[in-house]
Amino acid sequence: MRYHNFTEFALNKAFEFIEPGPVLLLTTQYKHKINVMTLSWSTLFDFDPQIGCVLSPGDYTFEILKASKECVLGVPTVDIMEKVVQIGNCSGENMDKFKTFNLTPLDAKMVKAPLIKECLFNVECKITDISLADKYGLFVMEGVKAWLDKNRPEKRTFHANGNGTFVIDGETKNLKHLMTKWQIFI
Amino acid sequence: MRYHNFTEFALNKAFEFIEPGPVLLLTTQYKHKINVMTLSWSTLFDFDPQIGCVLSPGDYTFEILKASKECVLGVPTVDIMEKVVQIGNCSGENMDKFKTFNLTPLDAKMVKAPLIKECLFNVECKITDISLADKYGLFVMEGVKAWLDKNRPEKRTFHANGNGTFVIDGETKNLKHLMTKWQIFI
Repeated sequence: MRYHNFTEFALNKAFEFIEPGPVLLLTTQYKHKINVMTLSWSTLFDFDPQIGCVLSPGDYTFEILKASKECVLGVPTVDIMEKVVQIGNCSGENMDKFKTFNLTPLDAKMVKAPLIKECLFNVECKITDISLADKYGLFVMEGVKAWLDKNRPEKRTFHANGNGTFVIDGETKNLKHLMTKWQIFI
Repeated sequence: MRYHNFTEFALNKAFEFIEPGPVLLLTTQYKHKINVMTLSWSTLFDFDPQIGCVLSPGDYTFEILKASKECVLGVPTVDIMEKVVQIGNCSGENMDKFKTFNLTPLDAKMVKAPLIKECLFNVECKITDISLADKYGLFVMEGVKAWLDKNRPEKRTFHANGNGTFVIDGETKNLKHLMTKWQIFI
């Protein structure tokens, strides 16, 4: 399925965009207001994909995720890195971040939260477990639809070092010949 | 404190090596047998650091972690990438991986699991919560001592793409001037 600049991407391969640990954007919609936050603490739980995102109770999105139980995870690339960092340094409580940072929200198919046109990849997610939010900030979610912008020239993602510096993807090394135990995935 | 090739590293900055999401090595000791596995699914929960590692029930280490409640997380660099991938494609159940892969175990200070001499960074961890292991494969742990090999020439880590390819750290970009909300960390 084609949709704007996106092509639908196989859900059972969507984990490939989350596993490397890039900085993510997380969008929500609640009471007709859309918002986006920057997220660096995430992990996979399963290949479905089942994903864990860790937020702070101080994040504006924290209570919204509990209530809306839906979000979109977008994978940004290095060409919008400064914007992504700025999004992570202000709050949607008192601004429209999509407008401020000139991001284009697109209707998702399975959730109310928007896709981000400027991201390489988006995965629509349903939150399946909020019981660990208060203790660990952990929201467990299931990807339900995934979208890839195949024709985007810039594909390099970036990772937070936690100290205000970010490391950009370099060379990719193919070690499929060594994945003898995990042939199912390659 | 100096120890072999390592210098003790501030615990409250140890999260900086985990947050970017590199492939990790996880060592254990149980009943006098040491072992090491490769791990790509992890996240931070807090800056202490509190770390979540996700294992499969099929991993030899899974039950060992439940029983020993201790481990060391090592951060390997690209010069031992092939070795790290091979370690992730066999089981410690029927082999001595340290010997097979020519890794040097060093006594840790706070846990029985060994440090890995060949890693850039090691953090000794106490498992604080195994209640989510069966449902999510999740082991919550607290870093209790951290070690950096400052003089190691190779510092580039690598990230699993999940399909048998791995992306190596490229350029680091300093965006501290944009971290207006998070000045405490930079």
